[in-house]
Amino acid sequence: MSDMHWFVILSTVGAALAIAIGVLAPGLAMGKAIAQALDALARQPEAEKAITRTLFIGLAMIESLAIYVLVVVLIILFRNPLIEYLLK
Amino acid sequence: MSDMHWFVILSTVGAALAIAIGVLAPGLAMGKAIAQALDALARQPEAEKAITRTLFIGLAMIESLAIYVLVVVLIILFRNPLIEYLLK
Amino acid sequence: MSDMHWFVILSTVGAALAIAIGVLAPGLAMGKAIAQALDALARQPEAEKAITRTLFIGLAMIESLAIYVLVVVLIILFRNPLIEYLLK
Amino acid sequence: MSDMHWFVILSTVGAALAIAIGVLAPGLAMGKAIAQALDALARQPEAEKAITRTLFIGLAMIESLAIYVLVVVLIILFRNPLIEYLLK
Amino acid sequence: MSDMHWFVILSTVGAALAIAIGVLAPGLAMGKAIAQALDALARQPEAEKAITRTLFIGLAMIESLAIYVLVVVLIILFRNPLIEYLLK
Amino acid sequence: MSDMHWFVILSTVGAALAIAIGVLAPGLAMGKAIAQALDALARQPEAEKAITRTLFIGLAMIESLAIYVLVVVLIILFRNPLIEYLLK
Amino acid sequence: MSDMHWFVILSTVGAALAIAIGVLAPGLAMGKAIAQALDALARQPEAEKAITRTLFIGLAMIESLAIYVLVVVLIILFRNPLIEYLLK
Amino acid sequence: MSDMHWFVILSTVGAALAIAIGVLAPGLAMGKAIAQALDALARQPEAEKAITRTLFIGLAMIESLAIYVLVVVLIILFRNPLIEYLLK
Amino acid sequence: MSDMHWFVILSTVGAALAIAIGVLAPGLAMGKAIAQALDALARQPEAEKAITRTLFIGLAMIESLAIYVLVVVLIILFRNPLIEYLLK
Amino acid sequence: MSDMHWFVILSTVGAALAIAIGVLAPGLAMGKAIAQALDALARQPEAEKAITRTLFIGLAMIESLAIYVLVVVLIILFRNPLIEYLLK
Amino acid sequence: MSDMHWFVILSTVGAALAIAIGVLAPGLAMGKAIAQALDALARQPEAEKAITRTLFIGLAMIESLAIYVLVVVLIILFRNPLIEYLLK
Amino acid sequence: MSDMHWFVILSTVGAALAIAIGVLAPGLAMGKAIAQALDALARQPEAEKAITRTLFIGLAMIESLAIYVLVVVLIILFRNPLIEYLLK
Amino acid sequence: MSDMHWFVILSTVGAALAIAIGVLAPGLAMGKAIAQALDALARQPEAEKAITRTLFIGLAMIESLAIYVLVVVLIILFRNPLIEYLLK
Amino acid sequence: MSDMHWFVILSTVGAALAIAIGVLAPGLAMGKAIAQALDALARQPEAEKAITRTLFIGLAMIESLAIYVLVVVLIILFRNPLIEYLLK
Repeated sequence: MSDMHWFVILSTVGAALAIAIGVLAPGLAMGKAIAQALDALARQPEAEKAITRTLFIGLAMIESLAIYVLVVVLIILFRNPLIEYLLK
Repeated sequence: MSDMHWFVILSTVGAALAIAIGVLAPGLAMGKAIAQALDALARQPEAEKAITRTLFIGLAMIESLAIYVLVVVLIILFRNPLIEYLLK
Repeated sequence: MSDMHWFVILSTVGAALAIAIGVLAPGLAMGKAIAQALDALARQPEAEKAITRTLFIGLAMIESLAIYVLVVVLIILFRNPLIEYLLK
Repeated sequence: MSDMHWFVILSTVGAALAIAIGVLAPGLAMGKAIAQALDALARQPEAEKAITRTLFIGLAMIESLAIYVLVVVLIILFRNPLIEYLLK
Repeated sequence: MSDMHWFVILSTVGAALAIAIGVLAPGLAMGKAIAQALDALARQPEAEKAITRTLFIGLAMIESLAIYVLVVVLIILFRNPLIEYLLK
Repeated sequence: MSDMHWFVILSTVGAALAIAIGVLAPGLAMGKAIAQALDALARQPEAEKAITRTLFIGLAMIESLAIYVLVVVLIILFRNPLIEYLLK
Repeated sequence: MSDMHWFVILSTVGAALAIAIGVLAPGLAMGKAIAQALDALARQPEAEKAITRTLFIGLAMIESLAIYVLVVVLIILFRNPLIEYLLK
Repeated sequence: MSDMHWFVILSTVGAALAIAIGVLAPGLAMGKAIAQALDALARQPEAEKAITRTLFIGLAMIESLAIYVLVVVLIILFRNPLIEYLLK
Repeated sequence: MSDMHWFVILSTVGAALAIAIGVLAPGLAMGKAIAQALDALARQPEAEKAITRTLFIGLAMIESLAIYVLVVVLIILFRNPLIEYLLK
Repeated sequence: MSDMHWFVILSTVGAALAIAIGVLAPGLAMGKAIAQALDALARQPEAEKAITRTLFIGLAMIESLAIYVLVVVLIILFRNPLIEYLLK
Repeated sequence: MSDMHWFVILSTVGAALAIAIGVLAPGLAMGKAIAQALDALARQPEAEKAITRTLFIGLAMIESLAIYVLVVVLIILFRNPLIEYLLK
Repeated sequence: MSDMHWFVILSTVGAALAIAIGVLAPGLAMGKAIAQALDALARQPEAEKAITRTLFIGLAMIESLAIYVLVVVLIILFRNPLIEYLLK
Repeated sequence: MSDMHWFVILSTVGAALAIAIGVLAPGLAMGKAIAQALDALARQPEAEKAITRTLFIGLAMIESLAIYVLVVVLIILFRNPLIEYLLK
Repeated sequence: MSDMHWFVILSTVGAALAIAIGVLAPGLAMGKAIAQALDALARQPEAEKAITRTLFIGLAMIESLAIYVLVVVLIILFRNPLIEYLLK
């Protein structure tokens, strides 16, 4: 059953690296958006409502990208559809 | 059935890395667009409607790029058209 | 039929990586264009019509680049013209 | 039981590198957000409440990305669902 | 017919990567040109005609670079002139 | 007992590199936050209390990222849960 | 005829990568030149004639660099002078 | 005793590289913080006390990151807990 | 005649990559020079003659660098002086 | 005694590279701190005492990082504690 | 005569890559110098003589660097002094 | 005596690369410090004494980093303490 | 005489790459110095004598670095002192 | 005498690359220092004496770094102290 081992090992390592790489861009994007929101708040405090609403919608959009990666990683770890070709 | 194992393993790892790399650019692009939208809101609060509309259309365009990657990844994981050459 | 396996595996992995890499530049370009459009809207709200029209034409041009990559990837996954040399 | 060794070794190393890489983006993003919050405080001290609230929500969103990585790492170290295929 | 397989596999992967890499520069260049055009529109709305004309000629020039790559990729996929040396 | 050696060696090297890489982002983030705090102090000395409080909360958040890495490294060095599969 | 295969394969892949890499610099250069031309138009609309003339001569010079690469790539694909040493 | 040699060699090299890499971020962060403190002193000499206190707390926080790495390196060199598995 | 094949293959690939890499710097340099010329034209239209003359001499100097690479590449493809050592 | 050779060779090379890499960050940090101190002196000559004191404390902190690396390198070269496992 | 082949092949490839890499810095330097000369012309048209003279001397100095590389490449291609050790 | 050769060869190459890499950071740091000192002199000529003194102390500190590397390199070339394990 | 071939081949390739890499920094440095000299001329035409003198001394210093590399390359190509160990 | 060949070959290549890499930082540093000196001259012509003196001392300090590398390279080429272990 040596081949099964390779499948398990590489899936595990691939999942770990994928989530680690996959949060890079969302992380940097969030940092940029939040920093700019704070800057906007400091310059125009009375526009707080519009700024906060736009920021939250934006963060949700960015978070969705991280969720895509997390979903693929969890599919690979818990319920890989390709595994049926190995168990047959 | 050793070859099938290689197919499953490399498809899994390739899919994980592809989605991780594929959200890089959309993530950074969203971060930039949202940050600029917040900056625009702070400078011209009365143009909020035009800014929000342009931002949402832009985010949808960027999201489409991430969706392209996600679709290819899901095709590979769930219904790879090339697999028929292996099962014959 | 071991060679066919290599063809299927490398096509799959190549397609996944190609679409992941291929959306990098369009993503960053869209982010830049949209961010600048928002900045232009904030500075010159009355030029909204010209800005929006130029932005949409530009986004379409950029999107065309991502489509080129997607088309090549789908050709490889679904109807690779080179495959006839393997099935003969 | 040589294969089990490879699984343990690569899981351990993969987990260590994944958490090390996975805190890169959240770390940089936090640094950027906090720095901008301090700048905003210095420019608009009276908006402290709005700034602090936005900062904390933002830091929580960013922290969530690091938590995603940590969770995947801990799953791999303590309760890897793929391990059942090896123990059968 | 093992050599033919290598030819098909590497042509496919090479074509996929070439189009993915080849749209990088045109994509970034378009993003820059469009962003600057929007900035120019915001600063000098009455020069819209000259700006738009220059932008479109420029985008066509940049697009030509991506077309070069696409043409070479399609030649490789559909009608590779070097293939006659293999079929003799 | 050659496999055990590989486990010990790679765990040791992996732990050393993980902590070395893992302090990169927290280090840079702290440098940025502290530098900005000093800049804020110089511009708005009377806001010292708010600046210091925000800075310390921020540093604690960033430190938490480094602690995540340190904890995983210490788990690997002192009490690796995966080791039970090797000693059985 | 195995050596001939290597020649065909590596020529094909080399040509694909060369054209992909070779349009990088011309693409970025065109983007920069066009962006600056648009900026110049916005600042000095009455100098449109001189700006356009200089831009077109410049784009032609840059295009010549991409043509150099394309010519070498087409020579390699269609009429490689070194091939006579292989057919003798 | 060849395996023991590999353990000693790789531990030594890993420790040397880990401390070399691990001081990168703290070094850059300190440079940034100190440079900003000097800039702050030049702009607001009368805030010297607050600046110096914030700087020293910050340097201590950054130093703690370097200490984490140093501690792990010294543990590996002088008292590696994993070594008991090799001496049994 | 296997060695001759290696010579032909590597010369072909080397030539393709050399011209692709060799136009990088001239391309970027031209882009910079032309962009600056356009900027100069916009700021000082009456100095058009001096600007154009300097630009053309500069472009010729830069083009000479690309020509150096092209000449070496064509020497390698069409009339490699080292080939006499192989045909003897 | 071939294993001892590997130990000596890799320790020597590792020590040389570690000290070479380890002075990177302290060097850049010192350069930044000193440059900023000179800038501060030019802007606020009368604050020379505070600037000089802060600079020297900062340089000592940075130097400590280089010393950490030097100490580990000298331990490896002159008195490696792990060597006892090899001489037993 | 297999060794002679390796010499010819690697000299050819090395020469091609050396000239391609060797024009990088001169190209960028020329681009920078010419761009700055154009900027200087636009700001101080009456200093054209001094600017042109300094630019030409500078371009000649930079060109000399590219010539160094070209000379070494031509020596290697046409008259390699080390070749006498091979023909003896 | 083949092992001794490897020791000599790798020590030589390692020493050459270590000193080449080790002067990178001190070189850049010196360039930055000197450039800033010249800038400070131009802005505040009457503070020449303080500037010069600070610059020289700074250059000495930076030079010390290069000396660390040089010392380790010379130890390796002339009097490597680890060599006694090889000559026994 | 196979070893002599390796010596000749690697010396040739090493020399070609060394001169190609070695002109990078002098080239960029010259470009920067000349560009700044032109800028200085445009801002202070009456200081032309001092500027030109400083520029020429600076260019000579930078050229000396390229000469160091050229000398080592020519020593390797024409009169390598280590060659006596091979001819004995 | 095959080992001696490896020593000669790698020493030659290592020396060539070391001097090529070792002039990188001094070159860039000189470029920066000279450029800043020219800028300082243009802004404060009457401080020419102080500027020139500081520049020359600085250039000498930077040159010393390149000399360190050159000395180690020449030691390796002409009088390597480690060679006695090979000739015994």
